[in-house]
Amino acid sequence: MMSMRNESPILALTMGDPAGVGPEIIAGAWPFFFTETQPEGTKSASKQGKPLSGEPMLLARPVVFGHPEIIRQAFRLRKIDAEIVPIDTLESLEHYDGLFGLNRVPCVPCCNDSAVSVPHGEISAEAGDAAFKTLNRAIDFALAGKVDAIVTAPLHKKSLNLAGHHFPGHTEILATRCGIDDYAMMLYLGPQEGLASPTGLAVVHVTLHTAMKNVFAQITREAVLAKSHLIRNFMRPIKGSEPRIGVAALNCHCGDNGLFGDEEIRIIGPAVAQAQKENLIIAGPSPTDTLMLDAKNGLYDGIVAMYHDQGHIAIKLLGMHRAVNVTLGLPVIRTSVAHGTAFNIAWQGIAKISSMLEAVRVAMLLAEEKKQKL
Amino acid sequence: MMSMRNESPILALTMGDPAGVGPEIIAGAWPFFFTETQPEGTKSASKQGKPLSGEPMLLARPVVFGHPEIIRQAFRLRKIDAEIVPIDTLESLEHYDGLFGLNRVPCVPCCNDSAVSVPHGEISAEAGDAAFKTLNRAIDFALAGKVDAIVTAPLHKKSLNLAGHHFPGHTEILATRCGIDDYAMMLYLGPQEGLASPTGLAVVHVTLHTAMKNVFAQITREAVLAKSHLIRNFMRPIKGSEPRIGVAALNCHCGDNGLFGDEEIRIIGPAVAQAQKENLIIAGPSPTDTLMLDAKNGLYDGIVAMYHDQGHIAIKLLGMHRAVNVTLGLPVIRTSVAHGTAFNIAWQGIAKISSMLEAVRVAMLLAEEKKQKL
Repeated sequence: MMSMRNESPILALTMGDPAGVGPEIIAGAWPFFFTETQPEGTKSASKQGKPLSGEPMLLARPVVFGHPEIIRQAFRLRKIDAEIVPIDTLESLEHYDGLFGLNRVPCVPCCNDSAVSVPHGEISAEAGDAAFKTLNRAIDFALAGKVDAIVTAPLHKKSLNLAGHHFPGHTEILATRCGIDDYAMMLYLGPQEGLASPTGLAVVHVTLHTAMKNVFAQITREAVLAKSHLIRNFMRPIKGSEPRIGVAALNCHCGDNGLFGDEEIRIIGPAVAQAQKENLIIAGPSPTDTLMLDAKNGLYDGIVAMYHDQGHIAIKLLGMHRAVNVTLGLPVIRTSVAHGTAFNIAWQGIAKISSMLEAVRVAMLLAEEKKQKL
Repeated sequence: MMSMRNESPILALTMGDPAGVGPEIIAGAWPFFFTETQPEGTKSASKQGKPLSGEPMLLARPVVFGHPEIIRQAFRLRKIDAEIVPIDTLESLEHYDGLFGLNRVPCVPCCNDSAVSVPHGEISAEAGDAAFKTLNRAIDFALAGKVDAIVTAPLHKKSLNLAGHHFPGHTEILATRCGIDDYAMMLYLGPQEGLASPTGLAVVHVTLHTAMKNVFAQITREAVLAKSHLIRNFMRPIKGSEPRIGVAALNCHCGDNGLFGDEEIRIIGPAVAQAQKENLIIAGPSPTDTLMLDAKNGLYDGIVAMYHDQGHIAIKLLGMHRAVNVTLGLPVIRTSVAHGTAFNIAWQGIAKISSMLEAVRVAMLLAEEKKQKL
């Protein structure tokens, strides 16, 4: 048992924007990182499918990145009795089991003390700067190989920009720091009620944070093919066999043989044909409304969506509170909750922890898989 | 009781494509048109909300439009003992209760005998022609005021076009026959499990059967405003009070203050402001993924979607088998099942009848409301 836990991945949990729900979802989820028991409300996962990794659900070695005092307040809010222990290097984590755990929380200080007094539930440059510095500290540790994965709590884009950090969000900061252009944002929904597949559903986006008008130029055969491989490589270890991938059409009724647009004929269809030649189990393009219903009914393990809302409408309707955001294509493993800072309910102690638990679970799975490959 | 039924609307049920599931869903639903009992699988509607019209659920005066022999076969398939009675005028329907009902089905012959032998589950010009003639006959009767509403079973566009009738579907045939340019296709989902609103959810589309590339030119302030009024006028009698309408953004993250497109700022926002001036309870534009989740959670009675898939992905995930298609803006009341011909399961007797029942229920509601206005 001891040795197994010592081999489990070390996860950096970034607190995100201190004015939002980030700190409290880390605190609320904390006890479940050290137990095989699932919290209430996620029972469906164990009913419908086995734990994703085949290992006990969560026996992680998490480290919080943020401000120790903010984390302390968050644990108090969630009524979890724990000592927050500031640490500056992660060398002590080699003895994690003896030093840290349920009641002793290691925390890497990342930001100024001004972050402690930011108004809760509001935009502020101080909070945006704290979120930015926290993420960057975690990236430093990840690039140096001192943590195996980063799990991010939400930041607020306006606060981030107010602090002078001009990025749309975590993903772009990570990509810039890693020097990567070819990455993808994926949504993953684990096994749960209302979703027939026992290993969940992943949706990757060919285009993402861009105006609808710019989508057309960005949908290329190469991009559709690359995204198909990314989602295949993500879902294969989760499923334990070759995943079935469905590709969305861009136009309604799949373009209806060119009547409502020809991207399906010119671009998406040939990309799917090429992916089939490369031995992917892949079909499409298909009309997206029925494709998403088929996915719900278990016909697919992964969906390649053409633009942001296609994937997000479906995933949020299927399981908003358990969806996980995964950045594919980076040298650093990164998962995230799929929700935002939820300023309207921040620091009330009522934010749901299910997405954070899932984000940690998927991060562990990916980290373990990476270790096996080395 | 007798007089109430004599006043109930006369509904034309068109069989649609005889190779598809149309005839059998009419047959399967038939017994429920004469009873207050709801069929299995639709119990949630009565649990969560009262019947839409406040009247007994279904006590209709339906008339089938199609081919009597095809309808006979469909009733036999569904093991419903009924005599199919060909009628040429609807004058006899003035005595409907005495002449027709559960075991005597009035059927207006609309098409050639060749329609009887079309191969089931396949595209054919004969089937397409039969569907076209059937719809046109029903339109004749509706325009002459001999039926109060048309409820359409699905046709197959390829068969329709193979027969030389070049229309995308029912809606465009109806609009052409009625000489109407300004119509809208609406999806309506009645009260049911998984949908918090007790009076269901309607989604109207500003643009519909067109390439995504053409959507931008078609989204105008006038169009958004007109669609907002159409959905308000539809949902008001159903809700019994002023409905709450949510308007979708075109771009992801609602354009993020112009960063991902400016249609929200230039067009959709001003249209919503104008609608508010005109006393609609309306909000938006909002990011569509969270808007649809809010709608599921009961925050809205109606959604104005910018393009086909936005609305269809959400409605199909929320309740594929009970969604109803309503054409707004025509002088003729028309509802339809929201599914297609389902060739893969046609004539096996397993097609779900829930969408047909809902289509009839909504048609009755609209017809009764229209009568009250006269």
